[in-house]
Amino acid sequence: MHWSTHALAFARAQRKKSLEELKEFIRFASISAQPAYAGVTAKCAAWLAFHLRSVGLEHAQVVPTSRHPIVCASWRHARGAQTVLMYGHYDVQPAEPLGEWRSPPFDPDVRGDNIYGRGASDNKGQMFAHVKAIESFLKTAGGLPVNVICLFEGEEEIGSPNLSAFLTANRIALAANCAVVSDMQIPGPDRPAITYALRGGLSIELEARGPKRELHSGVFGGAVYNPLQAACEMVARLQDREGRISIPGFYDRVREWDARERAYMRDVGPSDAQILRDAGATMGWGESGYSLYERTTIRPALTLTGIVGGYQGSGVKAAIPTHAVAKLNFRLAPDQDPDEIDRLFREYVAQIAPLGVQTRVRTLMRAKPALVDRTHPAIAVAARAYQQAFGAPAVFLRNGGTIPVVNLIQDALKIPVVLMGFGLPDDRIHGPNEKIHLPNFFKGVETSIRFLAEMGTLQAASRGRGSSRLGSGKALFAKNEERM
Amino acid sequence: MHWSTHALAFARAQRKKSLEELKEFIRFASISAQPAYAGVTAKCAAWLAFHLRSVGLEHAQVVPTSRHPIVCASWRHARGAQTVLMYGHYDVQPAEPLGEWRSPPFDPDVRGDNIYGRGASDNKGQMFAHVKAIESFLKTAGGLPVNVICLFEGEEEIGSPNLSAFLTANRIALAANCAVVSDMQIPGPDRPAITYALRGGLSIELEARGPKRELHSGVFGGAVYNPLQAACEMVARLQDREGRISIPGFYDRVREWDARERAYMRDVGPSDAQILRDAGATMGWGESGYSLYERTTIRPALTLTGIVGGYQGSGVKAAIPTHAVAKLNFRLAPDQDPDEIDRLFREYVAQIAPLGVQTRVRTLMRAKPALVDRTHPAIAVAARAYQQAFGAPAVFLRNGGTIPVVNLIQDALKIPVVLMGFGLPDDRIHGPNEKIHLPNFFKGVETSIRFLAEMGTLQAASRGRGSSRLGSGKALFAKNEERM
Repeated sequence: MHWSTHALAFARAQRKKSLEELKEFIRFASISAQPAYAGVTAKCAAWLAFHLRSVGLEHAQVVPTSRHPIVCASWRHARGAQTVLMYGHYDVQPAEPLGEWRSPPFDPDVRGDNIYGRGASDNKGQMFAHVKAIESFLKTAGGLPVNVICLFEGEEEIGSPNLSAFLTANRIALAANCAVVSDMQIPGPDRPAITYALRGGLSIELEARGPKRELHSGVFGGAVYNPLQAACEMVARLQDREGRISIPGFYDRVREWDARERAYMRDVGPSDAQILRDAGATMGWGESGYSLYERTTIRPALTLTGIVGGYQGSGVKAAIPTHAVAKLNFRLAPDQDPDEIDRLFREYVAQIAPLGVQTRVRTLMRAKPALVDRTHPAIAVAARAYQQAFGAPAVFLRNGGTIPVVNLIQDALKIPVVLMGFGLPDDRIHGPNEKIHLPNFFKGVETSIRFLAEMGTLQAASRGRGSSRLGSGKALFAKNEERM
Repeated sequence: MHWSTHALAFARAQRKKSLEELKEFIRFASISAQPAYAGVTAKCAAWLAFHLRSVGLEHAQVVPTSRHPIVCASWRHARGAQTVLMYGHYDVQPAEPLGEWRSPPFDPDVRGDNIYGRGASDNKGQMFAHVKAIESFLKTAGGLPVNVICLFEGEEEIGSPNLSAFLTANRIALAANCAVVSDMQIPGPDRPAITYALRGGLSIELEARGPKRELHSGVFGGAVYNPLQAACEMVARLQDREGRISIPGFYDRVREWDARERAYMRDVGPSDAQILRDAGATMGWGESGYSLYERTTIRPALTLTGIVGGYQGSGVKAAIPTHAVAKLNFRLAPDQDPDEIDRLFREYVAQIAPLGVQTRVRTLMRAKPALVDRTHPAIAVAARAYQQAFGAPAVFLRNGGTIPVVNLIQDALKIPVVLMGFGLPDDRIHGPNEKIHLPNFFKGVETSIRFLAEMGTLQAASRGRGSSRLGSGKALFAKNEERM
């Protein structure tokens, strides 16, 4: 604990400098989805690798992939101690709609207690908190209480297409006792939380094609099937008015949770009123028999995120369009399998596809639901670190979102993932005016310092695990699957 | 007929120049629906007025309205002769989707026998044929065989919101024996046709509003109703899989036609195969018990022309949108009343509107179905003019489209409207790569010359009508309503 005292003092003294560095990091428009930003994304990776070297990490490198590079660094001189894999991503979502930002998305602006900019919360600010924690040890003690591997990718916002292969190819080098991912929200600035479940995801485009060219709706209306109408009709048949999905077999694998788990969720989770407040909605919706928290975590959902096709401008354009694309985003509950749901979806579409249009299905993204064992020692360490840094006990929450890397890490490296977020529900991640709450960022640095310090005391207790990491991780995860 | 010989010779000699002038006309992006184009629409009106003056018409003027001006001109020195009101519109449809044009929509391009550009057929090319016919008389004989009033509006594509008031306020100045509207297709380059029926129209926007800001579909999916989904569900409930509209009372006033009329339609109208060929479709669709020609003329139809809302870009944006707008275009059959259908639609939406979203209905355009008396002398003149210019007999057809001005003219001026089109079914009006077939344009000029020449011989025969225009027009139309 002596180490952490100095590290904490250093982190506090460095706050102003850390904030300037975070601004520098946010200034890179590292938008992974838009090819025009590939160059600046690469520059951001180079800056990050340089920064990791400057804080005292070793082997900092930029590893190219087929699209955006992975940045790695490590420090492995804590003999006999555990190894922590720090995951983060330096890429960001597109900044559109640009007109709705109060300050430019890539010109970070501090207003009140927040810093505004694309990526401030998702994920630059949150991952940078760990970097600053590592620096605080290395610059005061010249070493870390645990071994650390940093793995920061540049493709999270496009579904991490190259990460799985990288993890598998490097699983010996990446062997660790646990991974830490800080890419989520906690309920409030004084309400830390550890996420123990995430929904899976499946993004699909359903296309209906009709006439080869746009047709005048007067001349042909009533005689030619309208693919946009067909798309709406198919979409309307995907779920009922309560949001229960109509695809045969869809719910077959959805796990039913026992009364104890549901009671726990009721106790620690957000109330319906809280979720509606966060949503800015006046009224809930969805599957009866479940709370809003349950509907967004242990129940699957289907969101129609867009329909492309037809006339989008103002006024009237009286034409039957040639095609329409419905963009669908499933969220999957344990134990649904995105591959199976994808197949069931395609079978159902083949059934309901109306004559007179051609339909086509394209799968854009697939991710399994994720579960983390709440009883793992690293989780207990994270909970204590939160308590010390935030002065409030951490709760265990489910999150309705999807972080595909959690499963990628659990599957490839067979280690548990500690989901320790520093964001807030109103951070507007993916939207205009994204921000991170600065007190959360600084508490994040301290949480990470306390987490690393206590992880450094774990080696004796968990030597059994440490000595056979891959095997024990696998067993752990299997046990976890069983319990939850 | 002496006059017309010179006029025809002039028109033929001027073809190249006429084509260059038509190009100049098409170059104005006079898109009435899009406010950004208001300036260029006004410039188009000024150009047109100047052009009418230059061909020898008098009193050419640009009459402002609350939105886009009306262009008028006249020549009234044919004492004792009939008066023909030439109607056309210089405004055009939006050009989107821009990417699908082979040549820019407002940079007219002659390829083969066609000139491509937005408005080439609808309606700049067709109305310009009459202007060139008028010029051919004025530049050769220094006068016209009939009195002529030109009335070219700039708001046809947005439902002619200011035309009715203009017609009523100026009904003395606009008094005529018949009106000519050339804003439709004939079945083929050698198959002229006079339209005797048009469907009515009703364009409506149905909006669903949900959360105040975009919501992450992971965090909130399953707990907040998605207005885009709601819009699709409502759209799907508007018609059945055969296109039969589900609004209670919708068909109450739809006229059933007797076997004779349907047999006539079968004899002269396009076959299903022809309509499918025109549409570029392999398969028909719609209400059983009716041919495709009947479905598009004597039966109503509903086309979903666009859905605005959600993410339109490539890839995935996982958000619940704040709102969605379905753009709906009804086509109404005799004797449906657009005001009544509008009311029935609103009542039905109030019934099917789901809880959890706010719905709103906006009516953008309303037009009654139109019928024209096939036995009127001006129609017989038009048929002979077609025969002479095209070398083929004209047939009488119904058209599924809507030309609101036909009713506006019939109601305000109490005169019959001669619907004499020069377009072709594959002109792609309202779509990308709109064109007019140049042989049709030139035959259109000749048809108009022959029409005006023979109308000049009618004064004796129709003096009875001419002497009490308003009264006789009204009677004619009432009789017409009775017959058809």
